[in-house]
Amino acid sequence: MQQSEQEQQKEQEIAQNEMPDLIVNPYEVVNNSKKQIDYDKLIQSFGCQRIEQSHIERIQALTQKPVHHYLRRGIFFSHRDLNQVLDAYEAGKGFYLYTGRGPSGDSMHVGHLMPFIFTKYLQEAFDVPVVIELSDDEKFFHKSETTLEEYQRYGYENAKDIIACGFDVNKTFIFLSSKYAGHMYHNICKFQHAITYSQLRGIFGLNESDNCGKVAYPAVQAAPSLSSSFRHIFGKDEVMCLVPQGIDQDPYFRMTRDVCYKLKVPKTGCIHSQFLPGLHGFGTKMGTTDPTSAIFLTDSPKEIEEKVKKHALSGGGMTKKEHQEKGADLTVDVPYHYLRFFLEDDARLEEIRVQYGKGVMMTSEVKKELITVLTKIVTEHQQRRALVTDEIVEKFMELRPLSNYPPKKNN
Amino acid sequence: MQQSEQEQQKEQEIAQNEMPDLIVNPYEVVNNSKKQIDYDKLIQSFGCQRIEQSHIERIQALTQKPVHHYLRRGIFFSHRDLNQVLDAYEAGKGFYLYTGRGPSGDSMHVGHLMPFIFTKYLQEAFDVPVVIELSDDEKFFHKSETTLEEYQRYGYENAKDIIACGFDVNKTFIFLSSKYAGHMYHNICKFQHAITYSQLRGIFGLNESDNCGKVAYPAVQAAPSLSSSFRHIFGKDEVMCLVPQGIDQDPYFRMTRDVCYKLKVPKTGCIHSQFLPGLHGFGTKMGTTDPTSAIFLTDSPKEIEEKVKKHALSGGGMTKKEHQEKGADLTVDVPYHYLRFFLEDDARLEEIRVQYGKGVMMTSEVKKELITVLTKIVTEHQQRRALVTDEIVEKFMELRPLSNYPPKKNN
Repeated sequence: MQQSEQEQQKEQEIAQNEMPDLIVNPYEVVNNSKKQIDYDKLIQSFGCQRIEQSHIERIQALTQKPVHHYLRRGIFFSHRDLNQVLDAYEAGKGFYLYTGRGPSGDSMHVGHLMPFIFTKYLQEAFDVPVVIELSDDEKFFHKSETTLEEYQRYGYENAKDIIACGFDVNKTFIFLSSKYAGHMYHNICKFQHAITYSQLRGIFGLNESDNCGKVAYPAVQAAPSLSSSFRHIFGKDEVMCLVPQGIDQDPYFRMTRDVCYKLKVPKTGCIHSQFLPGLHGFGTKMGTTDPTSAIFLTDSPKEIEEKVKKHALSGGGMTKKEHQEKGADLTVDVPYHYLRFFLEDDARLEEIRVQYGKGVMMTSEVKKELITVLTKIVTEHQQRRALVTDEIVEKFMELRPLSNYPPKKNN
Repeated sequence: MQQSEQEQQKEQEIAQNEMPDLIVNPYEVVNNSKKQIDYDKLIQSFGCQRIEQSHIERIQALTQKPVHHYLRRGIFFSHRDLNQVLDAYEAGKGFYLYTGRGPSGDSMHVGHLMPFIFTKYLQEAFDVPVVIELSDDEKFFHKSETTLEEYQRYGYENAKDIIACGFDVNKTFIFLSSKYAGHMYHNICKFQHAITYSQLRGIFGLNESDNCGKVAYPAVQAAPSLSSSFRHIFGKDEVMCLVPQGIDQDPYFRMTRDVCYKLKVPKTGCIHSQFLPGLHGFGTKMGTTDPTSAIFLTDSPKEIEEKVKKHALSGGGMTKKEHQEKGADLTVDVPYHYLRFFLEDDARLEEIRVQYGKGVMMTSEVKKELITVLTKIVTEHQQRRALVTDEIVEKFMELRPLSNYPPKKNN
């Protein structure tokens, strides 16, 4: 542990020295560069690995399905031990996916959907179980805006949006961490036991006036990485875990992996996504305090149209002439970047990239295309969410075996 | 909270300044005075209240039973909000008792029985429910000698000794905190949320290289003080809690009471016992590392006889002549002090105090009397314990209503 702690510290120092415009941790993402984050440098400073073309090809070969455009386009761009997870799958031992969300009462926005859209793709492609933690306790400790009971209620409501992403009820277990903690308390204790206060402080930037919940909680986020936290699914089998996540969550799992090593269980695999910027540009945040900063899952087609038209920062020229001469600056252009995330058609995206970059296509045309794409995504999401009843949520939250575990034997 | 934190700090400073020979906290009791601790000063420095004759009379009147000799003799000598608990009882609202033990693989000694003997008396006298926490997680965080699973096993074995004290299975719920934490996790979160790291550090003397479990755990000891941690017993009723405990545990409940105040629930009542000294004298410890330091619950009559004869520190004169002239020094004499704890007959104890103190009675006679008393207690305990099967332990640990709650209406 001593050595790995030093490694962590070294990594953080590198990150601080080499990327002065950037802060990335689970409680703060600040990009003062106003441009796309240099994710290659971030990989280096965090000590994780780039997802290579060879990984993508291997996933395609193993799943016999086209890989998701998040992978093709490097939106999920980085990993830890992805090969070990794929090895386990190939050997017929299977693996499971773990992701989550800190529930809030605010409307979720399209950025929040990303890990769930991607996890749902992986579930389908690999036919593996998914566990989803709604960390109401974390929000209670860190936000403290309301009661734990209210965060539980938010979690329950957020579960409806997550379910609307299309997860298979027979393969998915969703839980509020405040309700499920008892079932994995033996693992929570092991993580709390294996981590010192000073290590946590280094990872999460805690200070002494922080409440004790902030010290206790990281173990609650780590525990679902061990299959023994889900005896109703995995029995006594030790199954590898892969965690799709925004790269800001990586410190949690760096810590988790260190402890896995100490506990002599397989280290948790990670697969990291880039951040979706706010509508106002790279380095801006999405949030309900400024409704024009994001596309929310509750927005009407009219709201979407207005937000994209008025508020999505354009990298196009200031005048038509300038635009036609210089083309759009795609490194700052939000509409193009959103299409990277949400337009599935590779050929059309490439066409836009070239034509818009050359100044042949105008910002208004790109925005129009984005409005069409986002309206379809949000409207269809709303239709699916309207069908998610309390009974369906209860079903996802019920303790039960999942139908695709144990994995089918490869023939 | 700010003010109460300052109060706590002030209390600790007083304790440190005025009692330089004494350290009392949940993780360390050191008495360098070699004499009986000045419990009056300890009451003052901890800011709790002396149990007065009026309390004893009130308890006798309410229960219509002779009060336990631990109360009559001031062995349970201090309290917090005992009157409020008795008020609730008198008003027909009832209360419940909460006590516990950090399980260890070592044999329990007679000192460990004290809180359970006393709690069992209170259960019988008041006819109230008892909850008993076996804090296997605490031991895992603080001792780290073995695995959590092993501490669970110790807890299970220790439960047999506790049950052998005579608790009524229909009125008693015993739980391993690692197994029950999930049922009270909502309250654990509220405690963790309400206490800062620096407050905990002040109370328990933590440092930064301590594991996170030590920061998380105090809330797990506090949570059973809220009746909402036991929905299977109390439903949604808010019932007052009284905690019989060694005074070294008071810092936990000082913290607990501060949080109760913040959560706007009744403050936990406390009733504190003195410490039973080791056989080698006041200021010495009991423990398995030196088997001659204590009477263990597994000792044979021969072992008890030998330990008392050879190892129980006498306050008698060095020679028969000196003893007859000066009498025994009862402030350092262990056999007499043990009789205060374990000989129920008040008249006989008084006789010994006077005769031994005058030098009429010899140490050998007092020791002989102690051997008789302890042999009876330990032998009978062993007989009762032999009858405690795993099935009986399971029954005590089963989640169920208790037969004496809700309390019977006073007519």
